[in-house]
Amino acid sequence: MTLDQLTENILKKKSFLCVGLDIDVEKIPSFMQGSPTALVDFSKKIIAATAPYAVAYKPNIAFFETYGVEGIKALKEVMDYINDHYPEMFTIADAKRGDIGNTSTRYAKAYFETFGFDSITVAPYMGKDSVEPFLDFRDKYTILLALTSNSGSSDFQRLYVGDSTLYEQVLTQSKQWAGSERLMYVVGATQAEALSKIREQVPDSFLLVPGVGAQGGSLPEVAHHGLNEQVGLLVNSSRGILYAGNDENFAQAAADVAASLQNEMAALLTKKGLI
Amino acid sequence: MTLDQLTENILKKKSFLCVGLDIDVEKIPSFMQGSPTALVDFSKKIIAATAPYAVAYKPNIAFFETYGVEGIKALKEVMDYINDHYPEMFTIADAKRGDIGNTSTRYAKAYFETFGFDSITVAPYMGKDSVEPFLDFRDKYTILLALTSNSGSSDFQRLYVGDSTLYEQVLTQSKQWAGSERLMYVVGATQAEALSKIREQVPDSFLLVPGVGAQGGSLPEVAHHGLNEQVGLLVNSSRGILYAGNDENFAQAAADVAASLQNEMAALLTKKGLI
Repeated sequence: MTLDQLTENILKKKSFLCVGLDIDVEKIPSFMQGSPTALVDFSKKIIAATAPYAVAYKPNIAFFETYGVEGIKALKEVMDYINDHYPEMFTIADAKRGDIGNTSTRYAKAYFETFGFDSITVAPYMGKDSVEPFLDFRDKYTILLALTSNSGSSDFQRLYVGDSTLYEQVLTQSKQWAGSERLMYVVGATQAEALSKIREQVPDSFLLVPGVGAQGGSLPEVAHHGLNEQVGLLVNSSRGILYAGNDENFAQAAADVAASLQNEMAALLTKKGLI
Repeated sequence: MTLDQLTENILKKKSFLCVGLDIDVEKIPSFMQGSPTALVDFSKKIIAATAPYAVAYKPNIAFFETYGVEGIKALKEVMDYINDHYPEMFTIADAKRGDIGNTSTRYAKAYFETFGFDSITVAPYMGKDSVEPFLDFRDKYTILLALTSNSGSSDFQRLYVGDSTLYEQVLTQSKQWAGSERLMYVVGATQAEALSKIREQVPDSFLLVPGVGAQGGSLPEVAHHGLNEQVGLLVNSSRGILYAGNDENFAQAAADVAASLQNEMAALLTKKGLI
């Protein structure tokens, strides 16, 4: 997928909503839990219900990997379902991978080719040569962790390295590795005060913002600081949508939450003069 | 596995050799390449051949994950083979995972429970709450990236944060999260000059040292700086063993390289007065 296609889809749907598939099978409606295919069934119903309001899906790989071979089968089924039925959706492997070059190449092949994702989240700790293999794939995107939404973001990311924080160093250095046509960034919504400064540093890059909703981030604040002239923003919601309902009507409940977020996003896009 | 058992095995075998299973199916002997089970067949033969000389195996998850469902099936088969036939072996999931708490818990369950590993490599960028879930598992070990062996280690790990480098900060902070009975560190052998300083900072911790051989590290130097009074050291070799031969005798060639490393390690353990 090209970035123009992603942006077109955002403007058409008036939504920059990414639905995170962090599916805890113990939290899905109890009537579905007995089934060995629960992970796939639940994912498909959530996707079908929220697709009118979303532009991206972000399976969290850990929640599939934890079930071993069966979990990876489920991940493949979910990805095939999205790519077959909703080819306009931008897909994000929330995998936070990163290793020496020949290993990162294998991870890139796994997610971009074997599973058919458009993008993958990558951890920067091992530096340039651990990230570059992901950047070599055409029309695929690397979403580098900059400032995350968890409390541990203060342990290393916010430490000062000379005049700037470590996460600012990650932004500064990574801009030399690739431009906004290939590289995006994860910026936690719980750090809204940092968002405008980050937006100054990477004015053209797409930002993936998790942490709105269950983790406490504010959507209007994120939009205010994060939107650029080409939108450049994806906001993720996981738990608030996935577990909106816990009975037979769970998919409708998920759709209602997604619709409400889309409605709020449409107003924010209008306010910014983008639609 | 307990650390006492690992140390006993090291002293008994006079070896601190870890064999890295970073298996590139394009590099294995051509007569095996056609088989769909090549990854498993090759791994088993390498393990059987090198087991007398090794105390640990380190499957590199990317090299399995890249094949999707079939790759993960192969990983499970390889792990079952090791745990069934060589239960004394210390197993390391070279996965470099790390995410917010509930996600790290899923990764921990995947590797410690579903696949049956003793330990996993973890990236520290997201801080304490991304590492702690791995520390909650009894008789399982978290191997935190400190200083890696690739050129990108200078991009962030070696930057100064106040008076110490980022990787030293990782050591200092993580010591507060867990002691050497639960936490180990990855330290690249290509950074031998840093090893003695690291050993001072974490005198009791096991260090996992990759980068000896193909990546240029020196085994005597690593042993000199890295061994402590309880050994506390695992040195990994991957390519030098895996691709030692490229015909029907590849397993014997791998065994020869492993035996030679073990022989060198026995001398180094003796020199240090540990055996």
